[in-house]
Amino acid sequence: MENERLKQQIEFIVEIDKLKRVMRQSRIIGDIHDELLWENSAEHSWHFAMLAVILGEYADKTVDIGKVMKMALIHDIVEIDAGDTFAYDQLGHLDKAEREGKAASRIFGLLPDNQRDEMMELWMEFEERETNEAQFAAALDLVQPLLQNYYTQGYSWQKNKVTSDQVLARINAATKNSKTLKNFVEWLIHDAVKKGYLQ
Amino acid sequence: MENERLKQQIEFIVEIDKLKRVMRQSRIIGDIHDELLWENSAEHSWHFAMLAVILGEYADKTVDIGKVMKMALIHDIVEIDAGDTFAYDQLGHLDKAEREGKAASRIFGLLPDNQRDEMMELWMEFEERETNEAQFAAALDLVQPLLQNYYTQGYSWQKNKVTSDQVLARINAATKNSKTLKNFVEWLIHDAVKKGYLQ
Ligand SMILES: [Ca+2]
Repeated sequence: MENERLKQQIEFIVEIDKLKRVMRQSRIIGDIHDELLWENSAEHSWHFAMLAVILGEYADKTVDIGKVMKMALIHDIVEIDAGDTFAYDQLGHLDKAEREGKAASRIFGLLPDNQRDEMMELWMEFEERETNEAQFAAALDLVQPLLQNYYTQGYSWQKNKVTSDQVLARINAATKNSKTLKNFVEWLIHDAVKKGYLQ
Repeated sequence: MENERLKQQIEFIVEIDKLKRVMRQSRIIGDIHDELLWENSAEHSWHFAMLAVILGEYADKTVDIGKVMKMALIHDIVEIDAGDTFAYDQLGHLDKAEREGKAASRIFGLLPDNQRDEMMELWMEFEERETNEAQFAAALDLVQPLLQNYYTQGYSWQKNKVTSDQVLARINAATKNSKTLKNFVEWLIHDAVKKGYLQ
């Protein structure tokens, strides 16, 4: 193929296929006895982007939903090299930023320069949680796995010995741009405790 | 939970988790000897949306990329009820529209009325292939599985006895809004034949 720019873009598109093999600590909702059905990061990213499509009206400060969707789609691509770091893995978080930064440079570096820069900036914007879009995306990225856990009767919480205190401790930082989603998450956790899904 | 609107939205979000279990006739790129790694429709939808993010510049007639991304994210949700209909399955296509229409009514019908209408319209716009966005989305939805096939040495083409004539016959209808992607797909198919991946 002669089109060098398109060639780089296709190389990136083929490389990110690997996200379909990065496994998360979340169960797919459905038959909870089927051990095979853990969620991977590509599926999670699709679901997260769908939350942006459906729940956009709950951003307190205005957001560009197209940008939130893009953040959702690309936010985990670094896991192709860095792996998924479980939200409650303290040790894994010590070098998470370093591992993911290297991964971002390599993977987004496959793209033509202008797109590499755009993707790097968007990913860092999401990580820094400062803009309206990044803060709203953080709320959606919190809600998605909480739903997976709630609707599998707390499967991953129990397997990983996660407590309600640990889950509650993450809420304020993640829901700065959505009072409605903050309330929803608090309701969900208390209901999960009441139902015995979470200690 | 008291918020009735949010309750409907969450019900929809939980329901569409099932798309992660709808299997396609596409192999994930990687170890082609690992029989388990077929692609599901949630992963495909994520990848398709990423093609929109990266290849948007190749639309000949202007498109709203946010809209193309949304189309990608929702286009296969009907498969939760209707199943994936393989592109070359002539029998399956006889009642595809009917099966998928029913599925759209049920699944998008879980949403609050305004969002149900928005999703139904967006899905039908994609199906009808008339707007710039729908025509560009069709090209991306053609390219994504072609890449999966090419980079697994034609695994699914061979398994399903698909010929280059069948693949070539789909190109014109699917690439009305992208000369660049039309050329790319033609190059890819001819190269696949040359390499022996496709008859
Ligand atoms: Ca993650």
